[in-house]
Amino acid sequence: MTTQLNASFAALSDPTRRAVVEQLSRGPATVSTLAAPHAIALPTFMRHLRVLEDCGLVRSVKKGRVRTCHIEAAPLLELQGWLEWQRRIWDDRLDRLSELAETLETPDRSPP
Amino acid sequence: MTTQLNASFAALSDPTRRAVVEQLSRGPATVSTLAAPHAIALPTFMRHLRVLEDCGLVRSVKKGRVRTCHIEAAPLLELQGWLEWQRRIWDDRLDRLSELAETLETPDRSPP
Repeated sequence: MTTQLNASFAALSDPTRRAVVEQLSRGPATVSTLAAPHAIALPTFMRHLRVLEDCGLVRSVKKGRVRTCHIEAAPLLELQGWLEWQRRIWDDRLDRLSELAETLETPDRSPP
Repeated sequence: MTTQLNASFAALSDPTRRAVVEQLSRGPATVSTLAAPHAIALPTFMRHLRVLEDCGLVRSVKKGRVRTCHIEAAPLLELQGWLEWQRRIWDDRLDRLSELAETLETPDRSPP
């Protein structure tokens, strides 16, 4: 799981690779469609795609001479899970802090 | 924004740096407290901390000889936002696909 998170975070640290994930979120696409918007050489693009395939964010199938790619849910959900976990811990802490602040600010209204 | 996302994703691709973020989600901590669980040399640990500070995920303040770190919300929220955006596009697409599948599967029940 740690290795998967390392690889997924590293894969998404590149804007070309994030653009591929953004495009594949909209639906499967061929390699040439995916490469088209990027002003980089095809071998460089293929290296980016391989990084995404190696970490499991993208899968591809070849039919004849056409390779079609699609997104894989699990690694994205794992990233989301990790971030949400941090967020939850952190929100809980802020809630406790503001409860504490309220307790400290509220004057004692109990009868004398 | 792209540069910030690149830096945040890259920063979190390392397990030591993720552990620091996990610990700081629970509350601010001094550098020595943060370094304690990690079996690495202090200069190496400080380099990890600098990566987190450079991308804005962590901020620190020095008081006397003690440096205290805390987490910064914005970069984590930006990462979460990007992932949620992909998820939403992708869920919408799956919803449309399953609606389409239902339409195709439902036999025509209109009167003859």
